[in-house]
Amino acid sequence: MKLVVGLLWMLACALPASAAGAKARLWTIEDIVTAPEINSVAISVDGGRALYIVRQADLVSNRKVSALHLVQLSTGEDRVVARGAWMEEARTVPQSDDWSVLADIGSGVQLYRVDRRGGVTPIVVNPSTVVLGKVEGAVELYRLMEAPLSFGVLSYRFSPDGRTLWYSRAFADPSPVAKPLVDADVTQAFSTPRRTAPGRVEFRLRRENGDDERVAERPTSDRPAVEEGGAPIWSRSSDAVRFTLAGKRVVFELHSTVPRSADDASFSSEDFASRLSKVGYRLGEGDPRVPGSWLSSDGTRAVMGVRYNADDPRGGLIVVDPQHVEAAIGTTGGLTACDFTPRLDVGVCVRQGMTIPPELVRVGVADRRVTRILSLAPTHDEIAPLRVEPRVWRNPRGYQATGFLVYPREYRAGRRYPAILVTHGSDADERFASADFQWQYPVQVFAERGYVVIAVNDPAPSQSETLKAAVTQWSASTPGPVTPAQLQDEVWLSEVELFEAAVRDLAAKGLVDVDRVGIAGYSRGSQMVNVTMTQSTLFKAGSSGDGGYLEPSAYYLEYLRESYVNVYGGSPYAPAALENYRRLSPTFRADRAPGAILQQISGLYQTMIEFHDALRAAGKPSQMTLYPGETLSADDTHLFHIPSNRLAALQENLDWFDFWLRGMETPEASKQEQYRRWRDMRDARAH
Amino acid sequence: MKLVVGLLWMLACALPASAAGAKARLWTIEDIVTAPEINSVAISVDGGRALYIVRQADLVSNRKVSALHLVQLSTGEDRVVARGAWMEEARTVPQSDDWSVLADIGSGVQLYRVDRRGGVTPIVVNPSTVVLGKVEGAVELYRLMEAPLSFGVLSYRFSPDGRTLWYSRAFADPSPVAKPLVDADVTQAFSTPRRTAPGRVEFRLRRENGDDERVAERPTSDRPAVEEGGAPIWSRSSDAVRFTLAGKRVVFELHSTVPRSADDASFSSEDFASRLSKVGYRLGEGDPRVPGSWLSSDGTRAVMGVRYNADDPRGGLIVVDPQHVEAAIGTTGGLTACDFTPRLDVGVCVRQGMTIPPELVRVGVADRRVTRILSLAPTHDEIAPLRVEPRVWRNPRGYQATGFLVYPREYRAGRRYPAILVTHGSDADERFASADFQWQYPVQVFAERGYVVIAVNDPAPSQSETLKAAVTQWSASTPGPVTPAQLQDEVWLSEVELFEAAVRDLAAKGLVDVDRVGIAGYSRGSQMVNVTMTQSTLFKAGSSGDGGYLEPSAYYLEYLRESYVNVYGGSPYAPAALENYRRLSPTFRADRAPGAILQQISGLYQTMIEFHDALRAAGKPSQMTLYPGETLSADDTHLFHIPSNRLAALQENLDWFDFWLRGMETPEASKQEQYRRWRDMRDARAH
Repeated sequence: MKLVVGLLWMLACALPASAAGAKARLWTIEDIVTAPEINSVAISVDGGRALYIVRQADLVSNRKVSALHLVQLSTGEDRVVARGAWMEEARTVPQSDDWSVLADIGSGVQLYRVDRRGGVTPIVVNPSTVVLGKVEGAVELYRLMEAPLSFGVLSYRFSPDGRTLWYSRAFADPSPVAKPLVDADVTQAFSTPRRTAPGRVEFRLRRENGDDERVAERPTSDRPAVEEGGAPIWSRSSDAVRFTLAGKRVVFELHSTVPRSADDASFSSEDFASRLSKVGYRLGEGDPRVPGSWLSSDGTRAVMGVRYNADDPRGGLIVVDPQHVEAAIGTTGGLTACDFTPRLDVGVCVRQGMTIPPELVRVGVADRRVTRILSLAPTHDEIAPLRVEPRVWRNPRGYQATGFLVYPREYRAGRRYPAILVTHGSDADERFASADFQWQYPVQVFAERGYVVIAVNDPAPSQSETLKAAVTQWSASTPGPVTPAQLQDEVWLSEVELFEAAVRDLAAKGLVDVDRVGIAGYSRGSQMVNVTMTQSTLFKAGSSGDGGYLEPSAYYLEYLRESYVNVYGGSPYAPAALENYRRLSPTFRADRAPGAILQQISGLYQTMIEFHDALRAAGKPSQMTLYPGETLSADDTHLFHIPSNRLAALQENLDWFDFWLRGMETPEASKQEQYRRWRDMRDARAH
Repeated sequence: MKLVVGLLWMLACALPASAAGAKARLWTIEDIVTAPEINSVAISVDGGRALYIVRQADLVSNRKVSALHLVQLSTGEDRVVARGAWMEEARTVPQSDDWSVLADIGSGVQLYRVDRRGGVTPIVVNPSTVVLGKVEGAVELYRLMEAPLSFGVLSYRFSPDGRTLWYSRAFADPSPVAKPLVDADVTQAFSTPRRTAPGRVEFRLRRENGDDERVAERPTSDRPAVEEGGAPIWSRSSDAVRFTLAGKRVVFELHSTVPRSADDASFSSEDFASRLSKVGYRLGEGDPRVPGSWLSSDGTRAVMGVRYNADDPRGGLIVVDPQHVEAAIGTTGGLTACDFTPRLDVGVCVRQGMTIPPELVRVGVADRRVTRILSLAPTHDEIAPLRVEPRVWRNPRGYQATGFLVYPREYRAGRRYPAILVTHGSDADERFASADFQWQYPVQVFAERGYVVIAVNDPAPSQSETLKAAVTQWSASTPGPVTPAQLQDEVWLSEVELFEAAVRDLAAKGLVDVDRVGIAGYSRGSQMVNVTMTQSTLFKAGSSGDGGYLEPSAYYLEYLRESYVNVYGGSPYAPAALENYRRLSPTFRADRAPGAILQQISGLYQTMIEFHDALRAAGKPSQMTLYPGETLSADDTHLFHIPSNRLAALQENLDWFDFWLRGMETPEASKQEQYRRWRDMRDARAH
């Protein structure tokens, strides 16, 4: 498989380079911030047209905006039919030529119809909107990767016959009763970064005759129900909808007036799941990096989104026919969003890769042919692709991890380069400049500046019973056979060994200068940065993004408590747990750091401060930078949604590694304060 | 002195009891919540009338409200001339029959004039008000003991000739620039309970001809300047005002247009301070429990607010004549707010005591006579006074501490009673149901219910060079000769010994049942509760209010860092400091608690959670209760300003001690959830 992928890479690399021709230019930080996201496409019933949403940072207005495109698939003729603050869930309206879409085009997020000529008209406009987002006073936390937005409609799903609409909408509780909070409710409130208001969500049915009735209501504390919109599944005959509230399945039959508990009635998705249960690929359902799944209207065939995890990190599709013979739809790069006609003869997908800017492709199901329709990122097509190669590494225990090697633009064999290892769970895959993976680390600009970038995934737990048991215990609510020390070894320390092995291998091959290696990662990656920087002596600078998990005081966040007991055995002040904290928790090991550590954060947690303080107390160079929200009462989100914050944080990382790995400064007056701070730390550091 | 005070107490006790006559009734929790506060009085130039402000909880609207009273001193005829959300700084307008007052009577806090007939007219009304308070989005934290309020005018001071007005007003910064925060600024933001907006304060002069000019401007981060309004001091000739900005003294001369640095020009307050420097009493200036100080217009005589600390905790007055002979103005109870005529012949004061409801008194300076004008708390006069005796205790080191013993209502000699020790710094003094001291501990209702209440002050540092050195080191910004262990011994552990000695003494005298003793205190008192409950085995239940200082993670609050280094030597994760934490920090000693601990809090800090968690992990009964603000984006304040929170918290403490000291429950249905929780804790507790 590795060979095949390598060939595919060469192919992928060749295409855009020739397309770009003489215009080819180098990567900039602005290119990373403005890389488009296309997560929603919808093909018309006849397969002739498609609607899709492009979400992209607008540097002028300093916010992310959405554009709704209508494209003729035969000609590639493409036009924008609406622009707005936010759009999602573009879908075909069953049994019609129209589409539906959730969009904020000036009245908050509402449900609209789009006709075949691109005309946009309201389906449901609820004027009682509520603000959702990471801002003080919003209705409870939800959709945390976006700017605060007003929602009139939260989610929707048409019945297969197109006659009935299931949708949900939210309300703030009219006057939150200010009751004293006791014990666990105090910890819960303490664990909430912003004080958001409780509310409720209504689930409603609108019938063809215009009747619009409330079927159910849940408080916003029922997060699965609220965030998945009740996870509605229509029966194939359109006479009932099954939904999940308070963790229970309920069925509402259209001829009835009250919901009943779910029985064994046949629902399309259940059909689908049972028909596909014997397929060896991992189902992509629920993984946003993977296309969805489709069953043909006659029920004889399915196209299923899958993720190739083992040694080829990307999303793709397989076709399952009545005899359960599976067949992959082969293509370069990855497929990240698709839609298919009801007959399942043809579809459209977004294709992209580490070096492939997103493009819309036609997918023929019968012939498995994938053909490009148009580019979705024309300005990024102008960039000369970098050299990127997939890699698989092994740690001393034999666990294998996938990833990519990004070469410096001016790479010359035989010369050693400084290197930066970038890691975030399993997100190093065939997507284009994805913030999911690279966050505020300018991988492509690192390469332009002469760094080797080593993009490394976590080892997949499926490959080892021991690793799998440790990962399971990590989030278990009751004690298990895996001890804290074993869990620490499996989930973090063995991965440090893998990172060291990867770097030493590249050094041995003459590619990397082992004295100038840094490490960067956010979230799960920040755990690995902080642990690696306090366990290994190999990395001379680190950048750790919006993490803090493993630092002692996150024990007091309600949603992390159980996992902390699994990892450490108790609180950081409990004598019995102390040895486990000293073994792994970066705050307890700050005096071992071999280099400078930057923490970039989107919210105020003690965890980042305690690690910073411990580093400073040990004479180690350390900086925290908080990237703020739109106002003092709002925060930026875990994946930054404010373009100016991304620009500044990407630049800060570039400067940080240039300074600490290479001793380089740039002369801008605006940076002199930063360099003065860093020089002071460098001069004062303890060795 | 103890004997004298004892006699005074008998006198104090006798008066209201006879006044109340047949109507005498018992204390209720509502009485505690509605006890009036009178902090501002102003006598007319001729000594005939006075204006004063009564601030009081209104249980119907569930907020504190202010009423502005005008009283004829000869007759006691009293009427309300204005009501509003908040009033402060009632003063005589020099050289006139009028008064001035800061009041929110519907347009935010503005400056008004009150004429001799009680007519209220604006002096300065600034329509650009800003919100100050503990609420998200307010201008920086300020006046933290009040509800969020809109301010048009912050502070003011007329010149001695009454012709020129110095005042200040605030502005929010027009659009706070959302710049990334680095290092110390991150810690600073983390240490702020609500994200408040930076702003600026203007200091202005308004002249007799109506000219109104800005003299200076400071950012709200200059807290001394902002909170003291620049601390303006007018020259006696009214031709210059001296103020303090950014810690520097500046003089503005009215004939000039630019301020200059302060020289040795004679300013009234400096005169005053130098003339009084040889007086033995502690100056009461800046202590809100003590009346102010007044110099006669001819400069020959002064009346000075003092605090009798040594063995008689109350505020009072002394008179200083040209020969520097001091003479105390003797009275029962304490004097807590006063004003005197310019000639210093007569004044009005608020007199109150542990058993004396506030009353307005006339103070003759020449004859030192104090005569009652009228009651300021008529509904509290109806309550039959409790028996309260001043006490002095000594700890084994010989440090003495003042306080009071409150007897159970139905006290019979020879019978032993359960007891509750209540402590808060030096606030156990001659004031009436003062929230400063008793917070949410219903001292008077405890006594009605059969408890002895032991009200204990901290030992005054002035009595011991060793104690004084420790207290000085506690807040020092650089290391000193006092080690963390010595500091711990002096400031906390020796006071635990004092508490134990007080209880054992009362038990030895047959008054207290040593097996049923609890302890309660907020803020400084909460330190003593948490330390006592984890050092001594004597107390079977504790209630700790809005504290958390000494728990490990307050080390990470920027404004506490230096003191934590003095107390512990470093962070709670630093191996070198660990022994010091284990020696004192309650979280580290939770397994030693001999009883149940309740923490009532007004804000979300990890400190309370970590102590609670450690108690629970050790099998100890523990509860946290968070009392919320008006909205989800506001907090109640350290001294609760929301009456319903006070009512509930006072009741919770009563229930708590009844349950844990006496095994008592009351049958209200609304309390069954509480008792179920407590019974579960009792049944599960480890011994």
